Amino acid sequence: MAHISAPEGAPGIRSLVMFRPETGQHLYALAQVLLRGESPLSEAERELIAAYFSSRNDCIYCMCSHAATARYLFKDKKQVVDFVLDDYQSAPISSKLKSLLNIAGKVQQSGKAVLPEDVTEAHSHGANDRDIHDTVLIAATFCMFNRYVDGLASLTPTDPAAYEEMGKRLGEKGYILPGKT
Amino acid sequence: MAHISAPEGAPGIRSLVMFRPETGQHLYALAQVLLRGESPLSEAERELIAAYFSSRNDCIYCMCSHAATARYLFKDKKQVVDFVLDDYQSAPISSKLKSLLNIAGKVQQSGKAVLPEDVTEAHSHGANDRDIHDTVLIAATFCMFNRYVDGLASLTPTDPAAYEEMGKRLGEKGYILPGKT
Repeated sequence: MAHISAPEGAPGIRSLVMFRPETGQHLYALAQVLLRGESPLSEAERELIAAYFSSRNDCIYCMCSHAATARYLFKDKKQVVDFVLDDYQSAPISSKLKSLLNIAGKVQQSGKAVLPEDVTEAHSHGANDRDIHDTVLIAATFCMFNRYVDGLASLTPTDPAAYEEMGKRLGEKGYILPGKT
Repeated sequence: MAHISAPEGAPGIRSLVMFRPETGQHLYALAQVLLRGESPLSEAERELIAAYFSSRNDCIYCMCSHAATARYLFKDKKQVVDFVLDDYQSAPISSKLKSLLNIAGKVQQSGKAVLPEDVTEAHSHGANDRDIHDTVLIAATFCMFNRYVDGLASLTPTDPAAYEEMGKRLGEKGYILPGKT
């Protein structure tokens, strides 16, 4: 049971933004521009970073929903998502993406854990300032989402089909505040 | 030196939202509604929660700027800010605010660390669902801001006068994206 009287039936962050849409609208707008706006990282890569970060924070709702979205967006390469969640170092992804996942993992520990050598390593694999910026902000943003969702004990569905449906919706339509079209 | 080529001279998150205003606008809009919008918590109390949370995360920039803002807003009771940062349990604040700071401290550890008994304790001191919601979302949001600021190694001023000026600006004008009026 959630710690507050959020609308029943809606899972995770959806129930919380329905409880308080005045803040929810900005959370969804941030997610939309950060994960769907212009970036050197593909939408699939950004969702993968979000899923990886959330798995590090043990936030089941965010991990499952963004892993499902990444699978939807990676299409016929969707297996990469589970390889990354299992062990990104041995996953069939670019060295650049590995160096960015390393940075995301550092952000999970703390902001100060990101060292100049982590950034130098990412640059050596072709990452530019926008790659670094977007990776750190995605990680920081999911630090917020993970804690918002779990800190209020919002509903975490257990049926994998529920996440598959979310992944399809978020992959096709992006982040739209519940109740808006 | 920052990890990315953010505008020089601007400190902390200001330099980062100038680097990427497309995301920055939503970060500032979120801060404005969360810290200045309608809430059962006063603006001063919300800034105090932000400063306390940032001190727990050892984010000097966020701690100093929001402590300065809380001092500005508490006016002749501004000493309460330093009492809370030193040891909130013995600070001259209400039991309700202490129970909310306890919840914010739990969110700093992880979302799952917030237990039903923490929420029950807050309710017993008069906190309602909006108090709990706003506390958790302020804490979660500063989990993001702290990591954004430190994860990109943005400039942290060392001069206390710089923070006093920020506190006055944020206390008087709220959260306005740099370059906007």
